[in-house]
Amino acid sequence: MSPQEFRQFGHRTVDWIADYWERLESLPVAPEVAPGQVRGLLPRHPPEHGEPFEALLHDLDGIVVPGLLHWQHPRFLGYFPANTSGPAVLADLLSAGLGVQGMTWSTSPACTELEQHVLDWLVEILGLPDRFRSDGSGGGVIQDTASSALLVALVSALHRAGKGMVRREGTGGRRFGLYVTGETHSSAVKAAIIAGLGEQSVRQVRTDPATLALDVSHLRTLVMRDVADGVTPLLAVATVGTTSTTAVDPVAAIGEVCRRHGIWLHVDAAYAGVAAVCPELRWLNEGVAEHADSYCTNPHKWLLTTFDCDAFWVADRAWLTEAMTILPEYLRNAATESGLVTDYRNWQVPLGRRFRALKLWAVIRWYGVEGLRRHIRQGIGLAAELAEWIRADERFELAAPHPLSLVCFRLRTPPDADPDTANLRLLERVNASGTTFLTHSRIHDRVVLRIAVGGTFTQRHHVEQAWQCLAQEASRILRSTPA
Amino acid sequence: MSPQEFRQFGHRTVDWIADYWERLESLPVAPEVAPGQVRGLLPRHPPEHGEPFEALLHDLDGIVVPGLLHWQHPRFLGYFPANTSGPAVLADLLSAGLGVQGMTWSTSPACTELEQHVLDWLVEILGLPDRFRSDGSGGGVIQDTASSALLVALVSALHRAGKGMVRREGTGGRRFGLYVTGETHSSAVKAAIIAGLGEQSVRQVRTDPATLALDVSHLRTLVMRDVADGVTPLLAVATVGTTSTTAVDPVAAIGEVCRRHGIWLHVDAAYAGVAAVCPELRWLNEGVAEHADSYCTNPHKWLLTTFDCDAFWVADRAWLTEAMTILPEYLRNAATESGLVTDYRNWQVPLGRRFRALKLWAVIRWYGVEGLRRHIRQGIGLAAELAEWIRADERFELAAPHPLSLVCFRLRTPPDADPDTANLRLLERVNASGTTFLTHSRIHDRVVLRIAVGGTFTQRHHVEQAWQCLAQEASRILRSTPA
Repeated sequence: MSPQEFRQFGHRTVDWIADYWERLESLPVAPEVAPGQVRGLLPRHPPEHGEPFEALLHDLDGIVVPGLLHWQHPRFLGYFPANTSGPAVLADLLSAGLGVQGMTWSTSPACTELEQHVLDWLVEILGLPDRFRSDGSGGGVIQDTASSALLVALVSALHRAGKGMVRREGTGGRRFGLYVTGETHSSAVKAAIIAGLGEQSVRQVRTDPATLALDVSHLRTLVMRDVADGVTPLLAVATVGTTSTTAVDPVAAIGEVCRRHGIWLHVDAAYAGVAAVCPELRWLNEGVAEHADSYCTNPHKWLLTTFDCDAFWVADRAWLTEAMTILPEYLRNAATESGLVTDYRNWQVPLGRRFRALKLWAVIRWYGVEGLRRHIRQGIGLAAELAEWIRADERFELAAPHPLSLVCFRLRTPPDADPDTANLRLLERVNASGTTFLTHSRIHDRVVLRIAVGGTFTQRHHVEQAWQCLAQEASRILRSTPA
Repeated sequence: MSPQEFRQFGHRTVDWIADYWERLESLPVAPEVAPGQVRGLLPRHPPEHGEPFEALLHDLDGIVVPGLLHWQHPRFLGYFPANTSGPAVLADLLSAGLGVQGMTWSTSPACTELEQHVLDWLVEILGLPDRFRSDGSGGGVIQDTASSALLVALVSALHRAGKGMVRREGTGGRRFGLYVTGETHSSAVKAAIIAGLGEQSVRQVRTDPATLALDVSHLRTLVMRDVADGVTPLLAVATVGTTSTTAVDPVAAIGEVCRRHGIWLHVDAAYAGVAAVCPELRWLNEGVAEHADSYCTNPHKWLLTTFDCDAFWVADRAWLTEAMTILPEYLRNAATESGLVTDYRNWQVPLGRRFRALKLWAVIRWYGVEGLRRHIRQGIGLAAELAEWIRADERFELAAPHPLSLVCFRLRTPPDADPDTANLRLLERVNASGTTFLTHSRIHDRVVLRIAVGGTFTQRHHVEQAWQCLAQEASRILRSTPA
């Protein structure tokens, strides 16, 4: 494709996206497709000859879009939001057009330095500790997701705990303990598997029944038990904003235990961390400055930055880079050998890396810090309002605190009806309506429905429409449920 | 940013990229910047108030571009190419604009199904075995890079070798052997570290001095030694197109050893695999059909697909998904429970995933298979021509076979001069000229220079210009070198 053709089709593509965003509201949020249905519409064999660009856009409209769950739909309220936004998309487009590799500083100096700079900005914006800054002992890096961030935190923790032995000899011959709760993200167990520790290394710390936050006295008990058993307490995950309910673990108290036992404290604030852009939510960072060895939050969830962009910081980058650095001849260069530069390839699993800092830079500059605050506050405000509607409606009950932009609730059912069945049926009906899309979780083994506000395009009337749909379907279900 | 503003700035951004591609030739390939220089031009603090989009483009031109190594420059001939192309960039733009998540089938069915479909197409295009297809026991998935592909292959191999024990209990208490050569990509050692096996698990198999390909008889010796020592032979990496010289390991013979000892065979064809689009290069797949447990190649290197796009296949997907699947309540859904769908989150380290299949789909459709062949053949033809120029010039010598689009060579130096110093000085001067950009490696501990053709925009006259620059600088160096 020549630059001239690129110009022409590029304008078409930009217009396609603008049109898509404008017509999103008219589309059902969730698709109605059966497994294999999309593939059934695609040609069995690849084309021998090139096709016009229009053919792609045609099939995008006819085959792909009808098979999508529209995450950017203003009435998408499932999982957590996956914010995309104009400035992020355009900066990401620039990244694709530039097509540079940031694996080492020397493979594109601006790619590394802009990333360091923007992550230092983010430390300031979120009120994170100075020791996360690149001009101290720590530093930030963009990972694809919080799962990968946790995995490299775990590798760093093993390096520190084993005093370098693990890198040489592996984890064999020594047992390690990881501390999580039933509310911790599943990526913790996944990281334990990938890092060769196995599921058996993962200790489930109890949570407080009311707050669903980690119970520190039980953590202490489990750590002491491990120490007595000859297991090395290795890493604790403190979650700031759990996936099911946005519960917040007591980072400071967990940190005290970690410090006493040399445990690596990883703070997973994937969803909630970005909310600290608002001074009134700085309490989300409590204990982080004093105790966190590593920390991550995802601008690609709730801070208007197109996936993938997980911001990950370490307090002492040496553990990370010493654990992961391998320097083959073909990557040797004067800048690396000078010791004056950061080579991000040593901070992550992949070698290659895209210029992802551009999109974070664009988002911060386009919105300004006040614009980011406005976005977070809007999500929280709408969630609070929604929670009031739920509280005021006797057919429903709130199921957990809602400190941020997620509301967990359930339909109240007659004593002889199965509440889980009724709630899952409600979920199914609401989602089948196409009006909105919600997801569920369980609290104390009981089904709850989740409404996560915070999408880029979500306004008050969208939440209202979703609530109306929910109320309507609830009435139908309650009418048909044996009373 | 409203859809209307997005339309306006989007057109500007598309034009910026088209202009950049058009003026690339006039830019020095490599930047002249010192560590910290780019950061020194950026404001110390983030902006409180939003800035106009023009400010971003202004700083892109003034601060970022001068600090980039231009990987898409037609005279960029370093490392391996990192192809970007119009259709890939535009499809990637669509992916950002759609902003959907493909972690499970149900979170956007078309995202998963298009990926399965396009990877089945690629099996056909590259002549890979049917057992890699998604309608058999195997299947393909897009990973970010070959490093991540190798890591998940290793996790799968551990699951198979330990009959599920490793997932539960970790790697502890049992020793495993990994077989690579000195030419294998550094990601193998990195994967061994991350997976908790440690560097000690990695066996360096000797290579043939002439071809730099793995010496199968030495592999046999090392495997037998491990068996005798109570070490479980776990995984062998066969590289098709090594990073230093594009050497090709004897996959079939390695596969025989693997089969006998239950070793997982991972074929790393990151750079060269895509060349099998040409029937005359199908020999690159020799042994893959019979022996490979997993295989990867990177369309983001030499097949016109913007980073990141590593195509990874397994012959039996059960090992992969059984090793990695964890199903928290908040991801439960009817489609997953039906067993009829693929949830790609279980095929990779991260949970979230972008709609990357779009760009591969766009590339295959825009160029057609014949267009892909043309691109590969052009790179190979230019490399062959360049190798002839080098061979005909008595100041130089070819340093390795050049079966594909990489040529390794060195400057001949007088007997009393240090050849490594002279060659590194030549590299430095050529790169400092801004005319072209090359990288180096070592063969048998002697420095060689590498010219990797295959960039999206590279034509014959660019290679000629690079060669002229090289010849000119060589003359200067030889004049100043004691004879």
